[in-house]
Amino acid sequence: MKTNEIISKEELLKHWQGHRSLTRRVIEAFPEKDLFEFKVGPMRPFSLMAQELISIAGPGLKGIVNRVEEPYSEKIDLKTKQEILDEWDKVTRDIDVYFNMIKEEDFHDTFNLFGEYKSPVYENLLYFIDNEIHHRGQGYVYLRALGIQPPPFWERY
Amino acid sequence: MKTNEIISKEELLKHWQGHRSLTRRVIEAFPEKDLFEFKVGPMRPFSLMAQELISIAGPGLKGIVNRVEEPYSEKIDLKTKQEILDEWDKVTRDIDVYFNMIKEEDFHDTFNLFGEYKSPVYENLLYFIDNEIHHRGQGYVYLRALGIQPPPFWERY
Repeated sequence: MKTNEIISKEELLKHWQGHRSLTRRVIEAFPEKDLFEFKVGPMRPFSLMAQELISIAGPGLKGIVNRVEEPYSEKIDLKTKQEILDEWDKVTRDIDVYFNMIKEEDFHDTFNLFGEYKSPVYENLLYFIDNEIHHRGQGYVYLRALGIQPPPFWERY
Repeated sequence: MKTNEIISKEELLKHWQGHRSLTRRVIEAFPEKDLFEFKVGPMRPFSLMAQELISIAGPGLKGIVNRVEEPYSEKIDLKTKQEILDEWDKVTRDIDVYFNMIKEEDFHDTFNLFGEYKSPVYENLLYFIDNEIHHRGQGYVYLRALGIQPPPFWERY
């Protein structure tokens, strides 16, 4: 059946979770020490980028669903790769639950994300995904600089 | 008026072109020599990444519109920053024309992009955007490594 909808809600969720699977593999690809210490110039180590992504995705999505505009905060302070992966997986499960609570007709509502970024809900969500791809791309450079082959960009299972 | 469509065709085009404006500023931010020579480990200089993005976006989109599955090729060999920016701008104009030629009801058609990547059209298009964000994120690391402040990630005018 042909539809006029260019991307469905289910497709956008699958797209996002596909990216998250890949980012998880990038986190895994870092040696423990380098995940927390390696960086280029004035940039952050990938552990802090991953914690940013965790702090945006879960709380941001819950904010959209519950219409709560709490300020962005990185309260977490994860100390090992395993702790980051566990928190990552928790957010992955939260996303499956909360994303489905947004009704199709609400994707164009204006929401003031973290009390600071006023956009339609669909733009808030695309921003989460874009920001993840952006920082993961930076993680790819870190891995290459460390002599490690990153996982293929196009694999999103 | 409320709509059940989570993202409209016009919104996706605006989203893509917003990313392209930012990527253009990242190309501009590189010193001429570093654009063609600076790289990390076994990676490519940003000039080659930009030429990949040019070679995907224009021909890929035209392929989707015309249903022509020509193999991917990077025939271009741009030698200066200005040549890259000029080609970038040409593709930007092409995208405005060709994107609008895809009908909403065709976004879920399966298309064998470059005769190689069989996906629904909306996934082909998201891949173009994702791949651009990915490589641009790598460009950010190059700029930081060169001591240059990249343009803000959230500015998409």
